[in-house]
Amino acid sequence: MEILQNIRFVDIIEILGTFAFAISGIRLASAKQFDLFGAFVVGFVTAIGGGTVRDIFLDVTPFWMLNTVYLWCSLAALIFVMIFRKHLVSLNNTFFLFDSIGLGLFVVVGVEKTIFMDFEPWVAITMGVITGTVGGILRDIFINEIPLVFRKDIYALACVAGGVVFTVMYSVNANMFLTETMTAATVIAIRLLAVKFHWHMPIVKGE
Amino acid sequence: MEILQNIRFVDIIEILGTFAFAISGIRLASAKQFDLFGAFVVGFVTAIGGGTVRDIFLDVTPFWMLNTVYLWCSLAALIFVMIFRKHLVSLNNTFFLFDSIGLGLFVVVGVEKTIFMDFEPWVAITMGVITGTVGGILRDIFINEIPLVFRKDIYALACVAGGVVFTVMYSVNANMFLTETMTAATVIAIRLLAVKFHWHMPIVKGE
Amino acid sequence: MEILQNIRFVDIIEILGTFAFAISGIRLASAKQFDLFGAFVVGFVTAIGGGTVRDIFLDVTPFWMLNTVYLWCSLAALIFVMIFRKHLVSLNNTFFLFDSIGLGLFVVVGVEKTIFMDFEPWVAITMGVITGTVGGILRDIFINEIPLVFRKDIYALACVAGGVVFTVMYSVNANMFLTETMTAATVIAIRLLAVKFHWHMPIVKGE
Repeated sequence: MEILQNIRFVDIIEILGTFAFAISGIRLASAKQFDLFGAFVVGFVTAIGGGTVRDIFLDVTPFWMLNTVYLWCSLAALIFVMIFRKHLVSLNNTFFLFDSIGLGLFVVVGVEKTIFMDFEPWVAITMGVITGTVGGILRDIFINEIPLVFRKDIYALACVAGGVVFTVMYSVNANMFLTETMTAATVIAIRLLAVKFHWHMPIVKGE
Repeated sequence: MEILQNIRFVDIIEILGTFAFAISGIRLASAKQFDLFGAFVVGFVTAIGGGTVRDIFLDVTPFWMLNTVYLWCSLAALIFVMIFRKHLVSLNNTFFLFDSIGLGLFVVVGVEKTIFMDFEPWVAITMGVITGTVGGILRDIFINEIPLVFRKDIYALACVAGGVVFTVMYSVNANMFLTETMTAATVIAIRLLAVKFHWHMPIVKGE
Repeated sequence: MEILQNIRFVDIIEILGTFAFAISGIRLASAKQFDLFGAFVVGFVTAIGGGTVRDIFLDVTPFWMLNTVYLWCSLAALIFVMIFRKHLVSLNNTFFLFDSIGLGLFVVVGVEKTIFMDFEPWVAITMGVITGTVGGILRDIFINEIPLVFRKDIYALACVAGGVVFTVMYSVNANMFLTETMTAATVIAIRLLAVKFHWHMPIVKGE
């Protein structure tokens, strides 16, 4: 019973995260005059790109090929953007919150899946970062921009911190639900604080 | 005997399609002053990129690693472009026809390979779209442009329609050769009609 | 004993090559105002991108997931660039030498790994080229430039020549250490001569 509730809660978060990631891809695509199909693909790839690259590195079937929910989420995001396009700006804070929660969950999924396959902790942390960031990197390559994650915000560092929390708690056999929650909370907290207080990584100075 | 003819016919179409896809990559690369190697790589990747990503998602060896014909086709396309470069524009309609026929075949191959591996129909349709479109997406990323398929023509929708035809006919146990032919015909017809009548997907309006 | 020395020598070269490849990525990233994380990722991907794509095509676990040395090399390269950024230009010849030696080794590793998996020689040569060039291609896509390898230098052709040397010597059962050395020497020699004498591949003329 408790497990069932846990699964449902994670499912809802995953759907929210997928939806928020897809929204970010579709909005940026629409700003570049993409057509319906293009915007849908960019939204879908933003949502599933990170987990796909992770699954290929882990040599398992990409997760979205086993469940239609990610495709439907991306389609729902497309319809949502088309209907509410004039009101999207006023929802920016909501999207940002979903996006951060989704990021937290993506990191948990990425780290957990990898560590359960008996890779070393640093590989698991790397896969957490990949799960969280590669979708956005592909999105920015598709719209022909330099990936935002390379230039702005403490996005990737939040993923690393979450990955460290997970692997440390896992190594001391902490309760799994607590481990997952603390990992996601770490990612979300750092992400929210970084944006609120304008934390940035230092720029690497050129020659 | 009938099977033999069928195989040979498909082989010829696959060679024509590979050739046409490679030509499109090489022409766009040459417009950006790529050198011989660069133009060859862009042509080759345009021709094999979609099937390669599909095969990686399906966890099988990329098809072009098992047969040299795709490499030779791309090399032939390079030599062809170099020799006939002043006459290529007058062949545009021929290339477009080859390209459309190739697209039809690529969709058939992508859907069929996936459905024979017992994935669900929607995964097969998705792999058909990936087989048909990813080569062109990679081509446009290499030449540093926004992928054309995201902004123009009914390219991807033709692949989706073909995939639906295949999976529906397959589910009712239709004759396989008929299923393949109808699938390719659907893709080719939609592609030709879309270009002739300037059908486009609607642009997603920005905020 | 001799084997031990051989391994150590190859290890040192691999570290130098990884370091040099990462440096090239980090320098180009810093010229585009990437932050610390972005520069690190670009450096890391430049160093490991080619071998990663090769390993995915060969369906084996990406090599860098099995050994932390590539991550540490990239981190060392980042710190090196930050500390010595004013003196990097004067080290250009040294980096170029490391880069060429690294390229020679990358080709050896790529060809050897593939041929040991019983693929045909032309696949092994292709994997040698992929191992040597894809990291730089991904680097240039990340910084939103047309890949340099498509437009300049005899980079890829040096990889092809090295691959041919390896597969020919391997087919006549030449001593393995000699085969590896001659392969790397071919790549390095062509690369150095090409830059010294400004050899370029011809540009493919547009229409």
